[in-house]
Amino acid sequence: MCSLPVPQEPLRRVVVTGGTHGNEMSGVYLARHWLRTPVDLQRPSFSALPMLANPAATAVCRRYIGHDLNRTFTNTFLISKATPDEPYEVTRARELNQLLGPKSSSQAFDFLLDLHNTTANMGTCFITKATDVFAIHLCHHLQLKNPKLPSRVLVYQLSQDETYSLDSVAKHGMTLELGPQAQGVLRADLFSQMRSLVASSLDFIELFNQGTAFPAFEMEVYRFLGCEDFPHTEDGDLAGMVHPQLQDRDFEPLRPGTPVFQMFSGEDVLYKGDSTVYPVFINEAAYYEKNIAFMKSEKLLVSIPALPGLTPVPTPLT
Amino acid sequence: MCSLPVPQEPLRRVVVTGGTHGNEMSGVYLARHWLRTPVDLQRPSFSALPMLANPAATAVCRRYIGHDLNRTFTNTFLISKATPDEPYEVTRARELNQLLGPKSSSQAFDFLLDLHNTTANMGTCFITKATDVFAIHLCHHLQLKNPKLPSRVLVYQLSQDETYSLDSVAKHGMTLELGPQAQGVLRADLFSQMRSLVASSLDFIELFNQGTAFPAFEMEVYRFLGCEDFPHTEDGDLAGMVHPQLQDRDFEPLRPGTPVFQMFSGEDVLYKGDSTVYPVFINEAAYYEKNIAFMKSEKLLVSIPALPGLTPVPTPLT
Repeated sequence: MCSLPVPQEPLRRVVVTGGTHGNEMSGVYLARHWLRTPVDLQRPSFSALPMLANPAATAVCRRYIGHDLNRTFTNTFLISKATPDEPYEVTRARELNQLLGPKSSSQAFDFLLDLHNTTANMGTCFITKATDVFAIHLCHHLQLKNPKLPSRVLVYQLSQDETYSLDSVAKHGMTLELGPQAQGVLRADLFSQMRSLVASSLDFIELFNQGTAFPAFEMEVYRFLGCEDFPHTEDGDLAGMVHPQLQDRDFEPLRPGTPVFQMFSGEDVLYKGDSTVYPVFINEAAYYEKNIAFMKSEKLLVSIPALPGLTPVPTPLT
Repeated sequence: MCSLPVPQEPLRRVVVTGGTHGNEMSGVYLARHWLRTPVDLQRPSFSALPMLANPAATAVCRRYIGHDLNRTFTNTFLISKATPDEPYEVTRARELNQLLGPKSSSQAFDFLLDLHNTTANMGTCFITKATDVFAIHLCHHLQLKNPKLPSRVLVYQLSQDETYSLDSVAKHGMTLELGPQAQGVLRADLFSQMRSLVASSLDFIELFNQGTAFPAFEMEVYRFLGCEDFPHTEDGDLAGMVHPQLQDRDFEPLRPGTPVFQMFSGEDVLYKGDSTVYPVFINEAAYYEKNIAFMKSEKLLVSIPALPGLTPVPTPLT
């Protein structure tokens, strides 16, 4: 797989987005707080821009109004011609692409950190592309800074797929996913944790901007493999639910033959895959409509190359 | 306070409602299951009718479409003249009142059991009127049948207030509230627990119908006192959140001077009441829009009179 080039210059244009999903409250209220009080996002070499990504959905406390914004940053949507009846989020994605991109261009923001919550028991999860070496160094930095916090890295990109999430608009990016937290609820513990992880992320960018080099390392990552649907009745209704033995077991190994669903009739459904997988986003509220009971990942040990320090700009002779 | 008269005849017309709030999934999926497979709700002396109370909100997995259905069963709404632009739930409340009531009439259903979930850490909670001796005997029966299940009784009616909830349409009624469960999520553990509590409730009605008398007893109940709002900024936004020391502590004593909110600025806000209260519905997702951070209750020991057995109808001489 190709790696994105590592930055050759300081990252000056950094954005922290909350409310990409309007009912994921940690990011919504952090973004609102920073819009009033931006001092937390200032560092000597840059200031991160706080942004509420989907203000219309946030105002009504829903994930989205017409289309999931975090699935809308494909070229198809971004270069489509505006129409009067398009979903709100298609218009908004185009606006955000103008403000923060254009995607894949040299004008794009240097880094985008997107803040999310899940109803799944995922703890702290960093989601990024396998090819974004800069972002993976950031994940590693956050793990080293928070040794007591169980945090995992989920790499989410199938080789042939076009990226579709908000963080793909910038040159480098990461999604921070904290759970479990119910939609529409703001928990003080997760709010503080997210605030502190954002601060450490900006500190990492500052270190890089100041010329710090980061050595190579090995890291455990979970790589997205595919999705598992719920059991359904013939007329398309749910026929069962996530098995109590699977509920809340995100990132734990799921072996073939283990119960995954409990039917309303009482019967257990066993996992039919032919190898052990690591489920994530188990029983996420927003994924019922996407027919996803959980996502499957594999656990890998990967070698990440060093992130070279920036070459100091020579001071002109006087 | 006046007591509702205890039933003098067997309860033949019993209804179990789910989806009064369309994103509280245990009741939604139990109701859907029973509509396909009603055998669970059959007893020798009666069959309970399963019903999806708010099908429109359930179809889009929202609490409500235009107005909270569980606040719509007041005389003002029920006797109002239909208008073309009234909220969906006002129309639906009138329909349900025709089907299951009319409220306060001799034609009303004998018992209505309404199934709910909360995002608060309330465990199993039975909500009923202090005056409904029949329903309180049912709560006591459920507690005796489930000694390992922490379950509490919340009596919710201020003396001057008109009742407004769906269960007030029937002659006797109870709301079953299970949590914590995120909106839009179906947890197998809570689903099974709700199913089993409904079965025990129907068994209790069957026992009563068969002539069983239930003795007087003393019981701990939590009586609703009032609501506590979140701290707000001058422009009406949230300025803080439920304090981590209060989060998940439903039904535990809250003493004056204890932290209740953590401001986004970092400062703690202490509880200013002049006596100990017992908070419930702490940080319930649906109550942000109602400006309720938690409800306050007092804990009381109450004496409940015996529920006399039905007088057997004399068998006609042949």
